[in-house]
Amino acid sequence: MRKSLWSVVVFVLAVLVALGAAARAEEGMWTFDNVPLKELMKKYHFKPTQEWLDHLRLSSVRINDGGSASFISPDGLLLTNHHVARGQLQKNSTAEHDYIKNGFYAATEADEMKSPDLEINVLVGMENVTDRVQGAAKGINNASDALKARDAEIAKITRESKDKTGYRSDVVSFYSGGEYWLYQYKVYTDVRIVFAPEEEAAFFGGDPDNFTFPRFDTDMAIFRVYENGKPIHSTNYLKWSPKGAAPGELVFVSGHPGATEREDTLAQLMVQRDVITPNVIEYLSRRIDAAQQFAQQGPEQARLVNTLIFGLQNSLKVYLGRRDALADKAIIEKKTAEENDFKARIAANPEWQKEYGDAWDTIAKAEETLRPMVKARIFERTDSRLMGLALTLVQYAAEIKKPDAERLPQFHDANLEGLKFQLASPAPVSPALEKLYMTTALNLAVEKLGKSDEYVAAVLDGDDVPAAVNKLVDGTKMGDPAFRKSLMDGGEAAIASSTDPMIVAARRLDPVVRETTKKMNDTVGAVLTPAGEKLGKARFLAYGHDAYPDATFTLRLSYGTVGGMEYFNGRDKEPLQVGYPYNGTIAPPFTTFYGLYDHAASFGNRFPFKLTEKQQAARTSLDLSTPLNFVSTNDIIGGNSGSPVVNQNGELVGLIFDGNIESLAGDFVYDGTKNRAVAVHSAGMMEALRKIYHADKLADEIEGKQ
Amino acid sequence: MRKSLWSVVVFVLAVLVALGAAARAEEGMWTFDNVPLKELMKKYHFKPTQEWLDHLRLSSVRINDGGSASFISPDGLLLTNHHVARGQLQKNSTAEHDYIKNGFYAATEADEMKSPDLEINVLVGMENVTDRVQGAAKGINNASDALKARDAEIAKITRESKDKTGYRSDVVSFYSGGEYWLYQYKVYTDVRIVFAPEEEAAFFGGDPDNFTFPRFDTDMAIFRVYENGKPIHSTNYLKWSPKGAAPGELVFVSGHPGATEREDTLAQLMVQRDVITPNVIEYLSRRIDAAQQFAQQGPEQARLVNTLIFGLQNSLKVYLGRRDALADKAIIEKKTAEENDFKARIAANPEWQKEYGDAWDTIAKAEETLRPMVKARIFERTDSRLMGLALTLVQYAAEIKKPDAERLPQFHDANLEGLKFQLASPAPVSPALEKLYMTTALNLAVEKLGKSDEYVAAVLDGDDVPAAVNKLVDGTKMGDPAFRKSLMDGGEAAIASSTDPMIVAARRLDPVVRETTKKMNDTVGAVLTPAGEKLGKARFLAYGHDAYPDATFTLRLSYGTVGGMEYFNGRDKEPLQVGYPYNGTIAPPFTTFYGLYDHAASFGNRFPFKLTEKQQAARTSLDLSTPLNFVSTNDIIGGNSGSPVVNQNGELVGLIFDGNIESLAGDFVYDGTKNRAVAVHSAGMMEALRKIYHADKLADEIEGKQ
Repeated sequence: MRKSLWSVVVFVLAVLVALGAAARAEEGMWTFDNVPLKELMKKYHFKPTQEWLDHLRLSSVRINDGGSASFISPDGLLLTNHHVARGQLQKNSTAEHDYIKNGFYAATEADEMKSPDLEINVLVGMENVTDRVQGAAKGINNASDALKARDAEIAKITRESKDKTGYRSDVVSFYSGGEYWLYQYKVYTDVRIVFAPEEEAAFFGGDPDNFTFPRFDTDMAIFRVYENGKPIHSTNYLKWSPKGAAPGELVFVSGHPGATEREDTLAQLMVQRDVITPNVIEYLSRRIDAAQQFAQQGPEQARLVNTLIFGLQNSLKVYLGRRDALADKAIIEKKTAEENDFKARIAANPEWQKEYGDAWDTIAKAEETLRPMVKARIFERTDSRLMGLALTLVQYAAEIKKPDAERLPQFHDANLEGLKFQLASPAPVSPALEKLYMTTALNLAVEKLGKSDEYVAAVLDGDDVPAAVNKLVDGTKMGDPAFRKSLMDGGEAAIASSTDPMIVAARRLDPVVRETTKKMNDTVGAVLTPAGEKLGKARFLAYGHDAYPDATFTLRLSYGTVGGMEYFNGRDKEPLQVGYPYNGTIAPPFTTFYGLYDHAASFGNRFPFKLTEKQQAARTSLDLSTPLNFVSTNDIIGGNSGSPVVNQNGELVGLIFDGNIESLAGDFVYDGTKNRAVAVHSAGMMEALRKIYHADKLADEIEGKQ
Repeated sequence: MRKSLWSVVVFVLAVLVALGAAARAEEGMWTFDNVPLKELMKKYHFKPTQEWLDHLRLSSVRINDGGSASFISPDGLLLTNHHVARGQLQKNSTAEHDYIKNGFYAATEADEMKSPDLEINVLVGMENVTDRVQGAAKGINNASDALKARDAEIAKITRESKDKTGYRSDVVSFYSGGEYWLYQYKVYTDVRIVFAPEEEAAFFGGDPDNFTFPRFDTDMAIFRVYENGKPIHSTNYLKWSPKGAAPGELVFVSGHPGATEREDTLAQLMVQRDVITPNVIEYLSRRIDAAQQFAQQGPEQARLVNTLIFGLQNSLKVYLGRRDALADKAIIEKKTAEENDFKARIAANPEWQKEYGDAWDTIAKAEETLRPMVKARIFERTDSRLMGLALTLVQYAAEIKKPDAERLPQFHDANLEGLKFQLASPAPVSPALEKLYMTTALNLAVEKLGKSDEYVAAVLDGDDVPAAVNKLVDGTKMGDPAFRKSLMDGGEAAIASSTDPMIVAARRLDPVVRETTKKMNDTVGAVLTPAGEKLGKARFLAYGHDAYPDATFTLRLSYGTVGGMEYFNGRDKEPLQVGYPYNGTIAPPFTTFYGLYDHAASFGNRFPFKLTEKQQAARTSLDLSTPLNFVSTNDIIGGNSGSPVVNQNGELVGLIFDGNIESLAGDFVYDGTKNRAVAVHSAGMMEALRKIYHADKLADEIEGKQ
C-alpha cells in the first residue's frame, strides 16, 4: 500500500469539507497538537508525555516519493518499506545490476548507494495560523479575489518562515479549512540505500495479496541519512524491540496518511462515485494493459516497467475498493445519517443556521459545476516525466519575475529549493518508457476527449499520436540535468528561443493549463474553499474539538491494539487474541515464517508466491515460528506505508506496509470491527536480516550491539 | 460439515418441488443411473465406463449416523471423517477412556472396537418404480386418499423387495416426485473402530474455521466392517493414491448429500426464509448456550457434552449461511429469473399449461397453510433419546397389528430390521444429559408455544418443567436395552400396563403426534405431493432429462477440478492453479503441514488452534510441505462428509470433510466461481498415519504393502 499517485488529482478535485463524525473506537489520524490523551487514559490507562510525543514526532519521517519512515539508529539509519524505497532502487538499477530483483546490502558505509532524487522531511515546528489565513480574505466579497488574498497570505507566511528558520515551510489546512497551520520541516536530500530485500520477498503474494491479510512479506528497506557528506548523528531515533508487537498490546503509528474523504459531503461523495472513480479505474486499467504488453517484449523491458506496473496495480486496487465502498448501501446510509445529524445540530441554533446552514447546498452546487469538468481533468495528461519538467521550466521563467504572492503556488519562494532539487535529479529517464507512457496517455485522451480538446490539440500540434510522441521524445534533450539547468538559468529568453520539442510543446500547453487552473479556481475552488471553512467551523460548534481532520500527507498519530479482537473459545478462561472476523472465520493476529513456506508450497512455488533463493537456503536455520506480519486496529491509509509501529515505551515493534481489504473503505469511513493496519513484525525483520540476508553488522547496529 | 440434524425437519416441512434449472459448470449431484457422460467427454475428454461407475458405487458407503464413507482395503477398512465417526467414539468413551480427546488406534484386529449402533449401507440395486407409485394414486380424487394409496404402494414395493433379496429396500423420490426409485442396500451393522486422531487434530480451527478454507485438519477415521464376526473380504474398495490430488486435476466425489432446496419454488423459499430459518437458528442458539453452561460445570460434564456442542454449532453455521443466502438479493433474483423461465416454457405450450400451469399457485397456497404451523413443528420436541424410544415402542405395539400398507411409514415391514437394531443399542444414555436436553427443549417450547400447547401439555402433565423432567428421567428404565426388548416383545398389553413414566408420557403423546401428522399430511402433504410431481414432470418437458435431482441422502456422483481456477500471474506463460477468489485475494488450491504450524503459532497454540502432543512431537520428522487439505469444484453438501475423492483411475486422492463458507448458499444455488468442496489430501493422511500416529501397520494395509 502506498500513497496513491492519484492523491494529487483527488486533492485538486475535492477541496476538503468537514462532515463532522465524532471519533469512535480506535478511529482517528490525530495531529500531534491534538492527541486524544483523555481517551487514551480512559481506555488504556496510558498517558504519553509531551517528551514521548516530541521524541516520536522527531523520529518520524515523511518520504516525498510518497510514504513514511522512521529513524532507527543514532547514526541516521532510516527504516521504511521496500515499496516506498522501490522508486529509488529502480533509478539505481540497470540491466546489469537489478537491485529490485536481487535486493541490495551495503556491508560498509562506502557501499551505501545514493538516492538520485529523494527528499525526506522531519516535522520540527507547528504553528496555528488560522487567523492570518482566514483574516486575509475577510471583507473581500468577490470569491475569486478572496481566494487570491488567502493564497497571497499563505505565500507570505511560508516565505517569512523559510527566511527566518531555513526550514521547508508549508501552510496546510485541516478540518476543510477550519484550521490552517504552518508546518516547518527539516529537509534531507542525501539519503543512501543500505539494505533492501529481493522484490519477491518484499512483495510475496504480489498484486493478489496486496491489501489483504494474512500476509508473509519482508516489505522493508533501510536508508542512511547524510548531511554534508556524513551520516547524521541524533538522539531522535526509535529503539528496536527484539520481542516486537504482542497480541492485544496498545501500539501507536506515527506517519503520513495521504488523503481521506471522510469529511466530504454526500454531494462530494456522489461525484467521487459517479465520475471520478470509474474514470480513474479505466485510466489505470488501460495503463496496466499497455505496460504489461511492453513487459512481454523481453526481460529488460519487464525490468524497466515492473515498478510502474506495481504502482498502477496498487492504485487500481485502491480505486476498486473505493468503488465497492461507495456502492455499499450500508456505508452510504451511514454517511447520510452522519450528515443529517450534523445539519440538525446546526439547524437547532438559529445563529449557527444563519451563518453556516447554507454550506451544504453551496457545496452541492459547486459539485454540479465540477461534475462535467472531471473527465477532462483525468484524461488531460501526457504521463511524460520530461514534459512535466519542460512545463515546469516554462512556467518557472514566467513566474519567477512576479512578486511572490502573485505566483502559481508551486513557484512561491518557500518552494523553490525543493523544485530545484527535483529539476537537478540525475535519475535517468528511459526514452522507451517515455514513449510508452505518452502513447498510452495520449491515445486515451484522444479517445475520451477528442483531438479538438485544447490540451490534446496543444500536445499533438496537428500530428497523430505516434508521430507526435516520436517527435517529442526523440528530439528532446530534457533528460539531461545540465540542459535543464541551462534553461532555468537562461530565464525567459532561453525558454522563448528554445527549439527543443518538449519546450516548444510546453509553451503551447502553458496557456491551456493556466486557463484550466483559473477556471477551476474561479468556478469551483473559490466556492468550495469558503464553504469548506464554514463547515469546518460549524463542525467545531456542533461536535467540539475532540476530532481529527482528514488526512493530508501530514504527520499523524494513531493508536490501536495488535490483533484487535478477543474471542471466547469456550474452553479456556482467558479470551483468545485474534485479528478480526474474516472469510467466515477469525484472522490470526499475526503470521509466522511457517506461513510463508506454506503459501509457497501451496502455490507450487510460482510467482507471486515464489520463495527467493536466499529464503529457500535459510529455511532450516530460521526459527519458523517467528512472527512475520501482524494486524492492528490503527487507523491508517495510503501514505502511512513505512510508518513505525511503537509500543508504550516508544520502541519500534513493527513497520506498517499495508491495510487489509476491508481498510479500503477507510477512505470514507472507519469500521473498527474489520479495518486493520498490516505491519512487518520487528522480530521477523531481525530474523530475516540475520538469517536470510546475513546482514549481522546492520542488525547489530540497529540493536545497538556495536 | 455434516449432514444437518435438521434435514429431517426440512424434509417434513418442505416436500420437494422441482424448479428446473439447467445444469451449469461443475454443478450437479448426479444419480448413478444418469451420469452426464456427454458433458464429461466434452469438457474433460473422459468417459467413465459402466464398470468404473459400478466399482465406485459399490465402494461407496452411507453411514446412517449421517455421512458417507468408502472401502479402502480388501479386508473391510472403511474411511470416513472423524466428525462422522464421532458419535460412535463418544458412545465408547468414558471418563477414564476419552477416545474423542485422545484418539484411538487398534494395532491388532483384537483391539478393534465395536460401534454400538452404527448401520452402514451399500447401494447394490436401483429400479425405476415411478409408474407403480404414481399409478397407485390415479383416479383417486380425494387428495388425502391418493396420498395413502401412494404410501401403500411404496410399502408393497419395499416389502416385496426385502422379502425377495434380503436387502434394505427404500423407495425414494427424485425431481420432487417426477421419479420414484427402489434403492436396495446391503446393510452392515458390525462396524469396528480402527483409528481416530485426537479431536483437536481432526477439528483444528474448531467452530470458527468450520465451513471455511484454508484449513489444516486431519478429519479422518477408519473403521473395519465385519460380517458374522469376521472382517469382510471384497474387491469393491478404492486403491489409495500416495501422490494424491494435483491442482487442476479432474476428480469425482461419490457420496450421500443430505438435502438441498434448489428445486423449491419461490413460495417455498420464502417460508424457509421467513419462518423456518429464524426459528431453527433461535432453537440451535439456545441449545448451544445451555450445553455450554453445562460444560462449565466440570471436565466430565464437558466431555459428555462437547460432541453435542460440536453438532449444534455445525448446524447453526449451516443455518446462518442459509439465512445469509436467502437475504442475498442476487440469489433471490437468480431464483426468480429461473422460476419465470420455467413458467414461461410451460405457458408457451397450451397443453402443458393446462396440465401443469397451476402447480406453482397450488404450492404457494399450501405454503400459506404451512406457514402458521411451522413454529409448533420446530419447538414441539423433548430432545430426549429415551422419550423417542418410548414413543417408538408405544406406536410399534399399535402399528404392528395393522396390515403393512396401513401403518405409519417407519413401521412398514421393510423397515423393522433397522428399527429393532436401533432399539437394541447398548450405547449408554446419560441421565444428566437427558435432563439437560429435555429441560432446554421444554423451557423453549413453553416460552414459544405456551403450556396449553397440546404437545407441551401432554409431556408436562400439569407439572412445571423441572418437576416433569426429574419425574420422567429419574423414574424410567428406558435406558436399559433389555427393558426395551421386554416391552417390544410384550406387545400392546405390556405397553398399556407399563407404569414407566416415559411410557406413560408416550401414551399421552401418541395421539397428539398422530393428529399432527395427519393434519400435516391432509392439509400440506396431500397438496404438495401431487403438485410436486406435476412440476417434476413439467421440468422434464421444459428442460429434458439432462438434470440432477435435489439431494435426498442417496448416493450421488459429482465431478470437478482440484482448485478450480486459473490465474495469469503476468510473469509465467502457464497459468497459476489457485483455489478461488476470496478475502480480496486468491485462495491456494491446497494447504500444507507448514500452515498447520503457522496457525498454531499465530494463535498462541490455544484452542481451537492448538497442536496435540503428537503433532508437536512429530514436527521435525514430518515433510512439512506435504499437502494436508485441498479444495475442488465438486458440488457437495452436508451428508457428503466422509465421501471419497477419486481420480480418473478410480484411486482415492482425498476425503471430503467440509465446504467453504460460500458453499453454504449451495443449499439453494450453486456458484461455480466460489463454491468449493474441502477435502483431506491422501498424501497428508498417509503422512499423519505414519509420522504422527506411527500407525505403520494400518498404513501398510491401506497401501497394499502387507
